[in-house]
Amino acid sequence: MPNWLLPENIADVLPSEARKIEDLRRLMLDRFRTYGYELVMPPMLEYVESLLTGTGHDLDLRTFKLVDQLSGRTMGLRADITPQIARIDAHLLNRKGVTRLCYAGSVLFTRPRNLLATREPFQIGAEIFGHSGLEADLEIQELLLFCLQLAGLKQIRIDLCHAGVLEALLEGVPAAEAIESQLFGALATKDVPQLQELTRDLPAHVRDALLSLTTLYGDPADTLERARKVLPDLPGVKAALDDLAYLAASQSKDGPAVLSIDLADLRGYQYHSGVMFAAYVDGIPNAIARGGRYDKVGQAFGRDRPATGFSLDLRELAAISPVEARSNAILAPADDVPGLRAKIDSLRDAGEVVIRMLPGHDQDFEEFTGDRVLVEKNGQWVVTPR
Amino acid sequence: MPNWLLPENIADVLPSEARKIEDLRRLMLDRFRTYGYELVMPPMLEYVESLLTGTGHDLDLRTFKLVDQLSGRTMGLRADITPQIARIDAHLLNRKGVTRLCYAGSVLFTRPRNLLATREPFQIGAEIFGHSGLEADLEIQELLLFCLQLAGLKQIRIDLCHAGVLEALLEGVPAAEAIESQLFGALATKDVPQLQELTRDLPAHVRDALLSLTTLYGDPADTLERARKVLPDLPGVKAALDDLAYLAASQSKDGPAVLSIDLADLRGYQYHSGVMFAAYVDGIPNAIARGGRYDKVGQAFGRDRPATGFSLDLRELAAISPVEARSNAILAPADDVPGLRAKIDSLRDAGEVVIRMLPGHDQDFEEFTGDRVLVEKNGQWVVTPR
Repeated sequence: MPNWLLPENIADVLPSEARKIEDLRRLMLDRFRTYGYELVMPPMLEYVESLLTGTGHDLDLRTFKLVDQLSGRTMGLRADITPQIARIDAHLLNRKGVTRLCYAGSVLFTRPRNLLATREPFQIGAEIFGHSGLEADLEIQELLLFCLQLAGLKQIRIDLCHAGVLEALLEGVPAAEAIESQLFGALATKDVPQLQELTRDLPAHVRDALLSLTTLYGDPADTLERARKVLPDLPGVKAALDDLAYLAASQSKDGPAVLSIDLADLRGYQYHSGVMFAAYVDGIPNAIARGGRYDKVGQAFGRDRPATGFSLDLRELAAISPVEARSNAILAPADDVPGLRAKIDSLRDAGEVVIRMLPGHDQDFEEFTGDRVLVEKNGQWVVTPR
Repeated sequence: MPNWLLPENIADVLPSEARKIEDLRRLMLDRFRTYGYELVMPPMLEYVESLLTGTGHDLDLRTFKLVDQLSGRTMGLRADITPQIARIDAHLLNRKGVTRLCYAGSVLFTRPRNLLATREPFQIGAEIFGHSGLEADLEIQELLLFCLQLAGLKQIRIDLCHAGVLEALLEGVPAAEAIESQLFGALATKDVPQLQELTRDLPAHVRDALLSLTTLYGDPADTLERARKVLPDLPGVKAALDDLAYLAASQSKDGPAVLSIDLADLRGYQYHSGVMFAAYVDGIPNAIARGGRYDKVGQAFGRDRPATGFSLDLRELAAISPVEARSNAILAPADDVPGLRAKIDSLRDAGEVVIRMLPGHDQDFEEFTGDRVLVEKNGQWVVTPR
């Protein structure tokens, strides 16, 4: 096997794609900043005890493990950054008030999500800690929509969901709580036969409610109305539906996204606890961004802090974004002749790309179009079309 | 042990430091771009066969290994990005002409370089492939100096060295070639007693030359003159000294750095092959950046490509850079009142940081100074000092 082959579902990012990712990364981090989100950089490696605190079995299976030669303990390569940010909020910053944090970095998976998916997504996201009100959820959703628009995406759909519905339905039904993780797996994929099988021995009202969740999706007003009729009249269910109704009403009608509700879309439920959402664009089957509340993660770190946020894979976003990254460049001789050096410096200071043509070679670019050349005319260095 | 403790020599980067790293990262990548360097993003993980191709035992020991569950093969977590870039140039881009590439990303070490050093440096660098002439080395050194100035560093010293000197001295002396890696270790630390011990059984002229290398440092003209007198008159030695003389003469006298020569400063020699250099700043004992030729790495990947470049740890650079990253922010109410929304949007579009004060909380920032507030005056939203 040649020594330069990469592992499956692992790839280099070459110039034109890399520049697009870098451009989107800056656009998003800059937008986060104007909202007051402070940048943090958690490490790639942590002890598994901290890396997996408050998260589910799914993340554990996806996390590469290795032995720390300094301590002999097991470390994990992060497969998700959000729990790291919750740890930073809970222990390092340890603030009383509202804290807004953002981040961007690689995560690694032992297995890809599907045959074609990368095992090294580039995760970027924003999180608010310390405020349990829906204002925080609204801000996060607004920020996500802004970022997707910056990436040039149109026809965006936001699906709202609420972890509180399932929580309320399962509460006090030990037989159901025992199969919670299987239940939300079947719900997330709307796998009705599996759901019927799983719920066979549950009380009829719980069983019916769980099955009805797979049909409760669509336009917010209509879906919520149906949900109020079909689902049991439990305080937790009512509170969750009220939250969703408030969020749906707060989105401006002429906003950039179509809003819908999907009460079974519980992916990520393993650490989420309240409003959850996913963003979709036309023609792409999987969500391009996900987010929601995860108030329990801070608690697992020993500090009860409300939290909500979103994250997405920048590589995936770059692949579907129509934003153009290629830029033009001026080709200049490599000679050390009077005046040339100063001319090149001033062009570069003005933001131009000036590539010196090292003697005796052709040049070939992916990221740049060498559309102009620097030539001497009457003792002056001037830029002319190539 | 608390579940939020991090491994030794692994740390979170908190807001003010993270912002500084991000600012320097952008300054440097933007400068690379104006020189025509194309951005690439190699993966964090590769099979060890590719990750360690053309590199030395030292890098192997520093590299975390783990098993790929998809292939059963051993993968390594990168401890250096430069050989990855050489692989990309050799096989993915596969261009005939000159190729300029740059990158920025985390690397991980099994053991820290010293007790206080991080095991997760943030490596940034630039590389030129396909040109063996000294013009490429000059461009790389110029670019490094530019970047160090962007970071606000003053009193920079560049130490030049040349792998060809040691290579020529050891050539045809099998007893010396066998202990090559120990020799350059002793030379790099100028450990004269160890060097005397190691060279005891070598021919007298090789032994004397190796020992004299530890004294051949200082002002370029003077050092090269002494070197020509003291070192054996071998073609390889002469060519190396001529290269250094050319580089020293090409640096402008009023340039930003003091140039010196240190013929024993061979750190990184394991894959370097020609001119090598290290950048130092006053008060910091270790080099803050290193670079040089590594023509042999491409060869190890099956394509003989001349290569030269530099890299540095952005975390270390941020720690000593006087550039200020903190910025001012406007605090705004969270209420949904007419006019406020539009005012906030326009301030953010203009680049201002506007932080909405979620109801019922104090705010506390590290990255921002909330120096102004948005208040309503006569039906208008205006920014006033806090």
